[in-house]
Amino acid sequence: MRLLVINPNISTSVSDLIHKEARLSAGADVDITMVTAQMGVAYIETRFEALIGAYATALAAAEHHAGHDAMIVAAFGDPGLSGLREVMPVPVLGLTESALASACLLGHRFSIVAISQRIQAWYREVVESHGLQHRLASIRALDRPLASVGSVQEDHAQALRDLCERVVEEDGAEVIIVAGAPLAGLARALHGSLPVPVVDGVSSAVQHAMGLVRLNPGKATRGSFAPPPTKPNAGLPDSLTRLLAQG
Amino acid sequence: MRLLVINPNISTSVSDLIHKEARLSAGADVDITMVTAQMGVAYIETRFEALIGAYATALAAAEHHAGHDAMIVAAFGDPGLSGLREVMPVPVLGLTESALASACLLGHRFSIVAISQRIQAWYREVVESHGLQHRLASIRALDRPLASVGSVQEDHAQALRDLCERVVEEDGAEVIIVAGAPLAGLARALHGSLPVPVVDGVSSAVQHAMGLVRLNPGKATRGSFAPPPTKPNAGLPDSLTRLLAQG
Amino acid sequence: MRLLVINPNISTSVSDLIHKEARLSAGADVDITMVTAQMGVAYIETRFEALIGAYATALAAAEHHAGHDAMIVAAFGDPGLSGLREVMPVPVLGLTESALASACLLGHRFSIVAISQRIQAWYREVVESHGLQHRLASIRALDRPLASVGSVQEDHAQALRDLCERVVEEDGAEVIIVAGAPLAGLARALHGSLPVPVVDGVSSAVQHAMGLVRLNPGKATRGSFAPPPTKPNAGLPDSLTRLLAQG
Amino acid sequence: MRLLVINPNISTSVSDLIHKEARLSAGADVDITMVTAQMGVAYIETRFEALIGAYATALAAAEHHAGHDAMIVAAFGDPGLSGLREVMPVPVLGLTESALASACLLGHRFSIVAISQRIQAWYREVVESHGLQHRLASIRALDRPLASVGSVQEDHAQALRDLCERVVEEDGAEVIIVAGAPLAGLARALHGSLPVPVVDGVSSAVQHAMGLVRLNPGKATRGSFAPPPTKPNAGLPDSLTRLLAQG
Amino acid sequence: MRLLVINPNISTSVSDLIHKEARLSAGADVDITMVTAQMGVAYIETRFEALIGAYATALAAAEHHAGHDAMIVAAFGDPGLSGLREVMPVPVLGLTESALASACLLGHRFSIVAISQRIQAWYREVVESHGLQHRLASIRALDRPLASVGSVQEDHAQALRDLCERVVEEDGAEVIIVAGAPLAGLARALHGSLPVPVVDGVSSAVQHAMGLVRLNPGKATRGSFAPPPTKPNAGLPDSLTRLLAQG
Amino acid sequence: MRLLVINPNISTSVSDLIHKEARLSAGADVDITMVTAQMGVAYIETRFEALIGAYATALAAAEHHAGHDAMIVAAFGDPGLSGLREVMPVPVLGLTESALASACLLGHRFSIVAISQRIQAWYREVVESHGLQHRLASIRALDRPLASVGSVQEDHAQALRDLCERVVEEDGAEVIIVAGAPLAGLARALHGSLPVPVVDGVSSAVQHAMGLVRLNPGKATRGSFAPPPTKPNAGLPDSLTRLLAQG
Repeated sequence: MRLLVINPNISTSVSDLIHKEARLSAGADVDITMVTAQMGVAYIETRFEALIGAYATALAAAEHHAGHDAMIVAAFGDPGLSGLREVMPVPVLGLTESALASACLLGHRFSIVAISQRIQAWYREVVESHGLQHRLASIRALDRPLASVGSVQEDHAQALRDLCERVVEEDGAEVIIVAGAPLAGLARALHGSLPVPVVDGVSSAVQHAMGLVRLNPGKATRGSFAPPPTKPNAGLPDSLTRLLAQG
Repeated sequence: MRLLVINPNISTSVSDLIHKEARLSAGADVDITMVTAQMGVAYIETRFEALIGAYATALAAAEHHAGHDAMIVAAFGDPGLSGLREVMPVPVLGLTESALASACLLGHRFSIVAISQRIQAWYREVVESHGLQHRLASIRALDRPLASVGSVQEDHAQALRDLCERVVEEDGAEVIIVAGAPLAGLARALHGSLPVPVVDGVSSAVQHAMGLVRLNPGKATRGSFAPPPTKPNAGLPDSLTRLLAQG
Repeated sequence: MRLLVINPNISTSVSDLIHKEARLSAGADVDITMVTAQMGVAYIETRFEALIGAYATALAAAEHHAGHDAMIVAAFGDPGLSGLREVMPVPVLGLTESALASACLLGHRFSIVAISQRIQAWYREVVESHGLQHRLASIRALDRPLASVGSVQEDHAQALRDLCERVVEEDGAEVIIVAGAPLAGLARALHGSLPVPVVDGVSSAVQHAMGLVRLNPGKATRGSFAPPPTKPNAGLPDSLTRLLAQG
Repeated sequence: MRLLVINPNISTSVSDLIHKEARLSAGADVDITMVTAQMGVAYIETRFEALIGAYATALAAAEHHAGHDAMIVAAFGDPGLSGLREVMPVPVLGLTESALASACLLGHRFSIVAISQRIQAWYREVVESHGLQHRLASIRALDRPLASVGSVQEDHAQALRDLCERVVEEDGAEVIIVAGAPLAGLARALHGSLPVPVVDGVSSAVQHAMGLVRLNPGKATRGSFAPPPTKPNAGLPDSLTRLLAQG
Repeated sequence: MRLLVINPNISTSVSDLIHKEARLSAGADVDITMVTAQMGVAYIETRFEALIGAYATALAAAEHHAGHDAMIVAAFGDPGLSGLREVMPVPVLGLTESALASACLLGHRFSIVAISQRIQAWYREVVESHGLQHRLASIRALDRPLASVGSVQEDHAQALRDLCERVVEEDGAEVIIVAGAPLAGLARALHGSLPVPVVDGVSSAVQHAMGLVRLNPGKATRGSFAPPPTKPNAGLPDSLTRLLAQG
Repeated sequence: MRLLVINPNISTSVSDLIHKEARLSAGADVDITMVTAQMGVAYIETRFEALIGAYATALAAAEHHAGHDAMIVAAFGDPGLSGLREVMPVPVLGLTESALASACLLGHRFSIVAISQRIQAWYREVVESHGLQHRLASIRALDRPLASVGSVQEDHAQALRDLCERVVEEDGAEVIIVAGAPLAGLARALHGSLPVPVVDGVSSAVQHAMGLVRLNPGKATRGSFAPPPTKPNAGLPDSLTRLLAQG
């Protein structure tokens, strides 16, 4: 089995965290191709950055998807996910959607622990887009500037643990989602030290990708997740033009 | 990895279908223990039958769970699922919840194809209990009496296929869930012949069980999915008394 | 008129509280049969305990329902309510559903005052199952262990009153529901001393039972609240087998 | 016990229907004062007619409420209900709210059968204002002009029965609400001839009024259902001025 | 273009505030007719006061609407709005609905700043009636008695500004609505001094009225916003009788 | 006043329709800059095409926004709208959001009439993202291939009118939204010939843009609609880099 994992951001330090956690989560018989976006920002906190990240992910997906069995959009917030699901011939997973799926299998109400205050509004809207707002106990986030996005876990270790404890104590979280690719691996590190189950997006996405590949449910050829109907286009990079030509 | 699969009904013919699909879905390194409820009805269509099935499942779980890494409640409608999630030390999956999770990773709106008219209200309420009613395109069901619950797939092959086509054409389903343990294996059989992805509960539950075991998110020791606090009880079978004594 | 009131728990001290409040609430021309579950726990706080309580209630209902005009499941959380509504030939009421109905006739937003922290998640899910989450101002609960479930009202009198005042002051409750059979009679005791209407489950259920008996709306013979279709069963106590045979 | 029943419309023929059904529904020990609005239209189908009906009801309530234990706004759609609940010292019930409460105690999803096409939008909005839209299976209505509002039940007997059967067959109604004061008594007449429970607003309101009087939950003195704070007013009829002076 | 603006309250000092802000907001080519209700209370805080205000507005509208291109119900809470929309031949706007429309075009979640504690429940229900409760971050209100409704802005200037800052800081408001006709003009005064956009009802309603007049979308002649069907009426003021005669 | 209108598609024939309707809708004192995307597809029907359109719109906005008072994303579905709202210093409007705002000011439930079957799922999700799904009566669309996107209105004139009539007759639409930039001007053409108000996106967006410019509510400098925090970026076109540098 071969998984394509795309970091929609330009931070190779974050790609390293994602890759490491994906490798630990996948079995030995799974090959992982890790790709970093060629354009974009250091990390995505806002809707506009997500707009750019979605496009950057589409470019990377168009170029690299051949030969893979599933694809993961490796930024929490899932930039471009539903669009890519139309054009890719294989299952496409996102970190948020995958973490929500895991959390909903473990409890009724979940909280999200995130890396910045600003990022919370966007996350909330993504949860709403899945219709799961009633199961969202809370979102809590670090309130200090990030010196380096690749070392958030070490730089803010105690603050992150404190947030995890507060969402259980004060917000009634039955499951914790540690959110954002820069926190890849944190759920693994916290294992056994928190009073409720904790999941993250990268390992959830890897597990769900493996599960969907084995389920082999088929690709839509009708309805709104079939490839877009072919029609005139112009000004697009070749990779996107080719992708649209299959519709 | 060892999975405990409990059929909340008394039909061993259905247990055979479940067991076969679970084996096909699980990898070679997964052991499956198939258990049939010792009390109950031939198949569950109603809330009252689910009440009995929940209790029968609890009895079977209490007796057989030791040594397993995850457990599956193998009736669509998930009788007893949230209660068992409190007392079992390992992940507990249900067919409906698992199929919903798979479907939500494949599209935005799904339909459920079911085996009897009566069963639809119960299924709808289960979807509502997960807060996913806005993503439910429709539920459609066979409208003839079932001669034998173990042979529904053969006896009604064309009607089931017709229902699958109608939910796409008329209801806008982007994913199809073939629902109910008696339809275990049907998604596999239909593979490639329908215009949208199709999933079933048994294989979805097996994949999600394997995924959660690998994620290893931890068991709740606080909050509403921790084991029930110990308190006086009376009149219970020994297995349940022992289960409650661990709280 | 004859009402069957079933305590899904084994605590006869709680049955005494329920019985006393039911007698005070019902008119002199109403006979009340008070039945205590033969199996179960001292009081229900969790989904798993509710699973057991639902089955225990079904056993008691099957055995005792003959000759009654309506039946009350006398535990907040209503274990087994919707299932019993299918099989019983008469109206079946639950404490939560009845208290919610009363509260909704008195104001727009209500709060629930409960006896334990743990019990809150279950109550919230029951409110959600009725689709009334938008009208739930809050749930607040005692935060101390209960020495004796039969004397909660005396042991925690001031704390309960404080909770009632806080839900009005801080949460905007327009109606208060004092929840749980162990608090039966508390609404009556608090009458006139709180700034908003206060109701409890037992007296609400008695009033609604009397109302439904007089309305005499008929029993479903079609649709999802008709008795379950007859089908093979096995391993069940005689009382349940007889109940299922009428379908 | 004394109940004040106000018909917000000017049709005394409808008042007679309401009065008759209220008398049949109430026990012999309940006195009923039937009042017809002094201003307004023949029957309310629209939001603007409801605006007038609300004011007419307020005038009647201000004048007649003294000495009563509860009050019923006897038009489906409940014109003025929540406002009157603030100023009246006793419980105030409406036909829609009461019928919804009864229906929700009998099943999960209900349909409304109504007397005119135009009236449906208003009814739907009232159901939404209670947050119960997810439990509304359908609204169906007569599609012919009404020769006489006082004889709708006789003039359209077969069409009304057909609508009741269709909401069960085609819409999945588990309970039927026959809506509108002109249909007062129809549920009683249909008893035993329909496959699901059927309720109407007048008898439901009478039963809930009797229940609330017995519950005696108290009148709000704080929060949004306390009487309006006193403040300057002008140009009002004396009865309303007196009512506002008690705040 | 001619706009009719009706103050549903009797306070001419508030009418002056409304008129001034409406004039500032409308272009020079817009004529504004300002009308104060002939009956009612000093300002509307409750559902019952809104019931009276709705009727007073209907009387004023019936008398003054001729020759205008649009009409504004100038009290937050929009008493009588949907009813007037049926009978008026031109667009009818309300302060709440208009402010919500503006806010939703500027951000995802908004907060409402209001003039009294009591008023909040009513505002919340109005937001719910538009189905926008998920976008409501909070409602916060002054907690002191109002010496004079016409000078709230000056008397409580600092407290109002503090509330605006708190809804951003503590509640995550992305847009602020300053609510209530007595605050007409405050958004204009606060311009540039708050960290998120701020709107009020009067200027929003004026802009939306101008926009709808230019859109010229047509008046409903079918469906639930067509004029009410003609039918017998009695006891109504002449102006209302004439209005109903056009249906 | 200067409005920037961006067509996210490459079809200049559609840009002409948009421009013409925008000019008719805006007053003489409004300048309109019409810009067509430099990359993309002929018209947007799917999520993936919207992803591309969002990016193309961002490029055009970055290049052309200087000197304008408001900006309109002129494709139904509003690609990139919420992201652009963060970075643009002026109000940003979309066709869907604007048409929804207009429709909600004219009635309670609206239907959308669209140009292709495929486009409906995307539109539905956009309505859901605004939380207005309960007010959506239906979406109906042409079911024939489009020979030319610039002449849809003429080629399918009767079919479009038929759809408008069906949503009123069969779905209960109280307002009609004719959706999609290729239908710009159709609402104007249909004026007076339909039984309920009809609006389109272009003229609605122009009116709301004019209204917001006059309201002048201020730009967010805090919260989730403030410009994105500055952070490292790479690989972006200069115009985007400049835009992100202002944060």
